[in-house]
Amino acid sequence: MVNELLENAEAHIPEGYDPTLFKIRHSAAHIMAQAVVERFPDAKPTIGPPIEDRFYYDFEMSSPPNEDDLMWIEDRMRSIIKGRHPFEVREVTLEEARSLFSDNPYKIELIEELTAENGTSSLTVYQHDSFVDLCRGPHIPHSGYIKPNGIKLLSIAGAYWRGDAKQTQLIRIYGTAWKNRTQLDAFLERIEQAKARDHRVIGKKLELFMFSEKVGPGLPLWLPAGATLRETLVNFLRDEQLRRGYETIYTPHIGHLDLYKTSGHYPYYSESQFPAMETHEMDGYLLKPMNCPHHILIYSHKRRSYRDLPVKLAEFGQVYRYEQTGELGGLTRVRGFTVDDAHIFCTHDQVEEEIRDAIDLALQVLSTLDFKDFSVQLSLRDPQNHDKYTGTEDEWDAAEDAMRKVVQEMDLDVHEELGEAAFYGPKVDFKVRDALGRQWQLGTVQLDYNLPERFDLWYTGADDKHHRPAMIHRAPFGSLERFIGVLIEHCAGAFPFWLAPEQIRVMSISDRFIDYTKEIHRLIRQQGLRTTVDVRNEKIGYKIREAELYKIPYMVILGGQEVEQNTLSIRARSGDDLGSMPLDSFLELIEKERVPDMG
Amino acid sequence: MVNELLENAEAHIPEGYDPTLFKIRHSAAHIMAQAVVERFPDAKPTIGPPIEDRFYYDFEMSSPPNEDDLMWIEDRMRSIIKGRHPFEVREVTLEEARSLFSDNPYKIELIEELTAENGTSSLTVYQHDSFVDLCRGPHIPHSGYIKPNGIKLLSIAGAYWRGDAKQTQLIRIYGTAWKNRTQLDAFLERIEQAKARDHRVIGKKLELFMFSEKVGPGLPLWLPAGATLRETLVNFLRDEQLRRGYETIYTPHIGHLDLYKTSGHYPYYSESQFPAMETHEMDGYLLKPMNCPHHILIYSHKRRSYRDLPVKLAEFGQVYRYEQTGELGGLTRVRGFTVDDAHIFCTHDQVEEEIRDAIDLALQVLSTLDFKDFSVQLSLRDPQNHDKYTGTEDEWDAAEDAMRKVVQEMDLDVHEELGEAAFYGPKVDFKVRDALGRQWQLGTVQLDYNLPERFDLWYTGADDKHHRPAMIHRAPFGSLERFIGVLIEHCAGAFPFWLAPEQIRVMSISDRFIDYTKEIHRLIRQQGLRTTVDVRNEKIGYKIREAELYKIPYMVILGGQEVEQNTLSIRARSGDDLGSMPLDSFLELIEKERVPDMG
Repeated sequence: MVNELLENAEAHIPEGYDPTLFKIRHSAAHIMAQAVVERFPDAKPTIGPPIEDRFYYDFEMSSPPNEDDLMWIEDRMRSIIKGRHPFEVREVTLEEARSLFSDNPYKIELIEELTAENGTSSLTVYQHDSFVDLCRGPHIPHSGYIKPNGIKLLSIAGAYWRGDAKQTQLIRIYGTAWKNRTQLDAFLERIEQAKARDHRVIGKKLELFMFSEKVGPGLPLWLPAGATLRETLVNFLRDEQLRRGYETIYTPHIGHLDLYKTSGHYPYYSESQFPAMETHEMDGYLLKPMNCPHHILIYSHKRRSYRDLPVKLAEFGQVYRYEQTGELGGLTRVRGFTVDDAHIFCTHDQVEEEIRDAIDLALQVLSTLDFKDFSVQLSLRDPQNHDKYTGTEDEWDAAEDAMRKVVQEMDLDVHEELGEAAFYGPKVDFKVRDALGRQWQLGTVQLDYNLPERFDLWYTGADDKHHRPAMIHRAPFGSLERFIGVLIEHCAGAFPFWLAPEQIRVMSISDRFIDYTKEIHRLIRQQGLRTTVDVRNEKIGYKIREAELYKIPYMVILGGQEVEQNTLSIRARSGDDLGSMPLDSFLELIEKERVPDMG
Repeated sequence: MVNELLENAEAHIPEGYDPTLFKIRHSAAHIMAQAVVERFPDAKPTIGPPIEDRFYYDFEMSSPPNEDDLMWIEDRMRSIIKGRHPFEVREVTLEEARSLFSDNPYKIELIEELTAENGTSSLTVYQHDSFVDLCRGPHIPHSGYIKPNGIKLLSIAGAYWRGDAKQTQLIRIYGTAWKNRTQLDAFLERIEQAKARDHRVIGKKLELFMFSEKVGPGLPLWLPAGATLRETLVNFLRDEQLRRGYETIYTPHIGHLDLYKTSGHYPYYSESQFPAMETHEMDGYLLKPMNCPHHILIYSHKRRSYRDLPVKLAEFGQVYRYEQTGELGGLTRVRGFTVDDAHIFCTHDQVEEEIRDAIDLALQVLSTLDFKDFSVQLSLRDPQNHDKYTGTEDEWDAAEDAMRKVVQEMDLDVHEELGEAAFYGPKVDFKVRDALGRQWQLGTVQLDYNLPERFDLWYTGADDKHHRPAMIHRAPFGSLERFIGVLIEHCAGAFPFWLAPEQIRVMSISDRFIDYTKEIHRLIRQQGLRTTVDVRNEKIGYKIREAELYKIPYMVILGGQEVEQNTLSIRARSGDDLGSMPLDSFLELIEKERVPDMG
């Protein structure tokens, strides 16, 4: 009987999760709950599952534990572990369960729910030492399976019962548990590194961007260094787009509400849009949530012939979405962002070639910025949920087939995802992980046979008749803000030379070399390089440390020897001393880094 | 008595208006009114003054005259002119006046108003032939003073009685009258030229920008050629600004309403703003009508020391104003426009130098774009109207004195205008005329001691204490949209080479030279020049005419002789044949034109 229960329990380990680690963390959660209740007899345990790399337990308690409490709890967990208490499972009846947890309304709620769902047969409790918990398992045989120096409590947070803001607020304690101390240390090191790579932290330190409550949450303001980074990225992509036959346009940030009714953006996205500006004229204005309708108007402002196609209209267009404040975070989820948007209007014969070129550009952007670890998703419609999409089944079939064909021909490692398409068509998305391992969608290429229909777009064919063009929406960065956020974490703020807001800092070792230092700085600036000069009366070590904080690629250090020999001493961001050389040699050294490496 | 009346009448001629032309036009207006009433006995004349170059008369009438009516009226005017009818003035009593115009409620309203203002003494009427009008003169002695071939009716428009949209709608007939036919023809030619220079017409022909009812009035969408023009202008100014120590920033297009209450923009400008977006968070959001508040937040996001000043923050920031639809026109008055905005935060000691530099930049922009005929206005507060301004008298005195001192030192030909200051401080405005002679404000430099106070800005002085910085708002273009509108009219769409959206068109004389043509085009494009190729199977004359329509600076024409000698035949936009030359010579020829001539 017990064996059968244990076997059932094993089934609850998620795919891909190391079973031993899962059981260790699950049991550590129970042990932590025991310690918490011993320290706070009024605390009511609710639920406490293992999650990725960690576990937590939520408690109803009058006030959160302080540092001392946490240390006490952690110590007490170690002593329980050393007690080698068996984890024993047993099946209980509904009555037994109710009486075991009669002082805990959360457990009672769970019990009632579980029995209503499954009948009474599968209620199990696990007990170790004095602590009994309603639990489906699985657990380790006894607490000694955990290493006392393999566990650590991490943090405290607020959480709502069942994740519902209308329910009681609980206190969540996070901990982690590993097979041994080496594994634990490696994990803690990883967290530290992720914190050091957090783009919000780096963005502040490098003075790239800021937020202000006076402007509103999720609305980044770009400081000079960040603005330079942004412009350099934009120029890089614009140049590449011009080479690929795109044309630049600019459109307003608002439009009549009616425009978005025509496009279908209005009923589909109204929840995530800023409210309309209500005017007496027509139906008011909307802050644009997307650039497509404006671009469509530019396509259709004049007659187009098949000879003019493809028409590729590109804009770095800032759009606004009213995301919930709880979902906002740094640059990766904001309320105002810049889409490196383009819309390609082409004949149906040109669709595959244009999708291929758009995917190629997205791949080129990722490779130029040194993103090697990304995944590609082909997002298709959910065939069960027609209401989410516009357009006919035939259009969808054709569009999905075209997309699939191209990604297969390009030999991309693609996984397909049903129900993730845009409301107007299927898409290929490029996803990259940030420092904390969270996955973000960056670039996208979307095929659309629907908006051309809604806006009645046409071109004159070789047959002199009207034909409907296809439309491709594409954005290799996706959102410039999010892309920069992920990029900051990717390179921990040490941007490649061509992107670095400040590329070279020229500094004097003492006041005697100010003239030479200023002259070298002037000559470097004359080359169109982004450089500053530091001739303050400070120790050179201090100046170097400051330049290192800003992750400036090269430091030029000038003292008596350099003046005498008319050379520059060069120190790389890595800390490497590149030695002493004439200015020309230094310029030659960095020549290749001045432009992005397009592979 | 009559002499005295005539003498008084002369006083009504505006300064600078040729007295003979004024009287000719004033009398022509009466003659036109006589003819209109003869054609439309129910028409009620209201008022009919001379204006610059023209005259008009407003009538209450059931429907506007058609083409035939206008021809009849113009012919009838000529026959009245030939009748040499004297214009006779006489003074009338209030009773006489009331009875003379008893069937015309507009004249009665004027009579009551005039007598209420001046007593009854100065009511005069002028009569010629059968037509009597309430009028203060002056007029010509008799209708023969007008040349029958010196007059012309121009157009019809709607107008409200007393310019008030709540009053009756009237019909306005415009005409013009000159001393002779030569003068008239010269004027008509000028109108035609102005029409040909109209930036709305050229903007359409050259495909620079468009408007769409679906987006909303006054919201330009920039087509590829216009977007290129815009970007080239922006890059020109940005480079110059970087040289002058500005830093680039980017800020969102919206902000919490509260931000604009702090800045004072909200109560002062709420009439001309798009309505707020009402959200549950705080007080809602406003589409930004100005960039200053955002820039101020960036200044104050970190501690600033006197050593860091001046801080010069620049943004090509798009702002939105809810102008009345009746006031919108092409690019010169729009609802969404891009200010080439910068805010300079400096110590009070630095104010004069920074104003000087900002004015110098504005002058440099005008001279680079070849605007020689502009006026400079020093706009001061209206000392009678304190409510319009924020800040103390002392602050205003200091600010106005500083501005006046700099413009005097710079030897600018400035006229001062009371009551034209911004609500926060005095300013220097640069004004340029469009093709129709209308004056537009472009660049501006504004000194502001008030917003730093409202936002509690400070820097740490050498004394380690907090000090209030001064703030300079400046925009050398003013609005990029308006600047481009005026620029188009200024050069009639024939932009200087460095600005031309398409700089060079390479065309083949026949299909046999397609390869050579494509190769030359490729080599020119490789030089970073904006060029297209025309290898269509069309006559070369047709291709040239088309390139001329787009005002492309150079045409490269390639045929048998060019292939044989490996040369290019060059035709300038002016129509000049520059002869045949190798590619290198052509590139050398245009080298200097590739960058703006900064004088």
